Amino acid sequence: MDAHAGLRILGTGCHHPARRVASTVFDARLGLPPGGSEAATGVAMRGIAGDDETASWMAARAAEAALRAAGIDGGALDAIVSTCAVMEQPIPCQAALVQRALGLGASGIPAFDINATCLGFLVALDLIDVSIAAGRYRRVLVVASDVPSRGLRAEDPVTAPLFGDGAAAVVLGAAAPGEPSALLAWRMETYADGADACRIRGGGTRVAPGDPRNDDRDAYRFEMDGPATFRMAGRRLPRLLARLLEAAGLPVDALDCIVPHQASGGGLDRIVQALRLPEARTVRILGEHGNQVAASLPHALHHAIDSGHLQRGQTCLLLGTGAGLSVGGAVLRY
Amino acid sequence: MDAHAGLRILGTGCHHPARRVASTVFDARLGLPPGGSEAATGVAMRGIAGDDETASWMAARAAEAALRAAGIDGGALDAIVSTCAVMEQPIPCQAALVQRALGLGASGIPAFDINATCLGFLVALDLIDVSIAAGRYRRVLVVASDVPSRGLRAEDPVTAPLFGDGAAAVVLGAAAPGEPSALLAWRMETYADGADACRIRGGGTRVAPGDPRNDDRDAYRFEMDGPATFRMAGRRLPRLLARLLEAAGLPVDALDCIVPHQASGGGLDRIVQALRLPEARTVRILGEHGNQVAASLPHALHHAIDSGHLQRGQTCLLLGTGAGLSVGGAVLRY
Repeated sequence: MDAHAGLRILGTGCHHPARRVASTVFDARLGLPPGGSEAATGVAMRGIAGDDETASWMAARAAEAALRAAGIDGGALDAIVSTCAVMEQPIPCQAALVQRALGLGASGIPAFDINATCLGFLVALDLIDVSIAAGRYRRVLVVASDVPSRGLRAEDPVTAPLFGDGAAAVVLGAAAPGEPSALLAWRMETYADGADACRIRGGGTRVAPGDPRNDDRDAYRFEMDGPATFRMAGRRLPRLLARLLEAAGLPVDALDCIVPHQASGGGLDRIVQALRLPEARTVRILGEHGNQVAASLPHALHHAIDSGHLQRGQTCLLLGTGAGLSVGGAVLRY
Repeated sequence: MDAHAGLRILGTGCHHPARRVASTVFDARLGLPPGGSEAATGVAMRGIAGDDETASWMAARAAEAALRAAGIDGGALDAIVSTCAVMEQPIPCQAALVQRALGLGASGIPAFDINATCLGFLVALDLIDVSIAAGRYRRVLVVASDVPSRGLRAEDPVTAPLFGDGAAAVVLGAAAPGEPSALLAWRMETYADGADACRIRGGGTRVAPGDPRNDDRDAYRFEMDGPATFRMAGRRLPRLLARLLEAAGLPVDALDCIVPHQASGGGLDRIVQALRLPEARTVRILGEHGNQVAASLPHALHHAIDSGHLQRGQTCLLLGTGAGLSVGGAVLRY
């Protein structure tokens, strides 16, 4: 991709569920020694949403924080984009529920969803970049909110302690003249031969939940073939990163900040090692929040900005894997 | 929106389920006199997908037809975009399943979903238009496939006979120099105060199907407040159409072809009357296929092209309402 001038992150925000659960709780439930879940996943704590903390409600709270950071009123948005992996309900789209939760239900602001599971935020970043460059929108809210706790097998020691609920939001706009902010490079590749490696089979139109033939509750739980996912990532990420950096015109050492999808502790370690990424500049929020699915990348980006690790004018690499299986990344100048 | 030069529909296609069901079957089931269901909905026949005819399988068949019409091999695509309303399964995204069903599972072609329920195709048209204009992609498959029969209350006389299963696909590319094809205008408005007027409550993370508290099958069925939806459409569509035509620089009489979302017979009548659209130039496929949700607009567009109603260089209005509630439209030069 050629570099586009002009995409600027105007503000970011996140929201965590009120209830925080330590991994020792999972150890007891799973019959593991204390510390076993954390050692296996890299996750020490995670938020678990209560029944009132719906995906749209959390998304709205994250969006309000991002709007405050941007100094923009919600009514000034030109579009509301949700990038959650699993929707709160099948109809209408999640962005409409977020619009309503923001008190903007009479605004007419167009609301739609973009979904690439854990990489939805990356896809939105690219599509909104070209939309803003074309003058289609001026200010766009991109929000991700996921509640993976609703779709996990409680007895699975691999996935049950890995994920966390939460939301993150970014307000995107055009850089003013003289501002260097831009999306410098973007790339995504999907290899659906691995579509079964990360999946929830039930809940859509194939294994429909209203059908008496589909009463097996496990059909509605997340299934992951971790080794297959790791293998694909190991095979595909190095070339993707090389192409991204080539398109951005930057060597890896020139990157000020690395924001990987917070997939798992082992996954983060392998990415950092295999790609020879600078560990000290790599954002890790997995331990405190778990894998927040589509909210993971924007939450890690928010953390990089909020903590001062990513400063105006600096460059940032976003990188991740997702169900599909997909690999994707972007290089931003913040 | 300013007019973009250059978006060209390279090919279209559709797919119907093998099993076709006449409305008289619904009359008998619902205890209505023969013709009652058709009189109420405007639908005489519809396809009902078998268990093997999944949304991704139908999408792939429609996509193959569109690729043949475009004279393009699937491997030459730069992106695969699914715009279904309700996914086949929650993870991974639907476009990945379509990629695999097309035999492109090792291709690396990026695959992602865009969702705005019945207006997803319109949203994709705009985002892919700016992406192609920016040089991001050259050839993009946009496919819509829905299986509403899996989520209807069989005893509801309003919705049970209204919907039909099916898929439609469009291959988008850039117009060559001298070709007048373009997206001339686009607009969408969402009013989520009406989010409950068209909904499926269950199947996502709020009313999660794996939770024993959520065993009520009706939670997974489509619910529609028809009068509220009609009122919103009547209130919002005239201004939307006026703005679209102003942006396109065309009076309604200059439009060669009108492609409305095939919502219902009464809905189509009201739109044609209220907006004073030329009936003879308005595409109606509802009677033979029912409301195919997200596949409705691209299927109607395919029909307009395939039947010769829309010729190269002519203009076409796409217009519709969707859950959200949203109204949207586009003016294309084919």
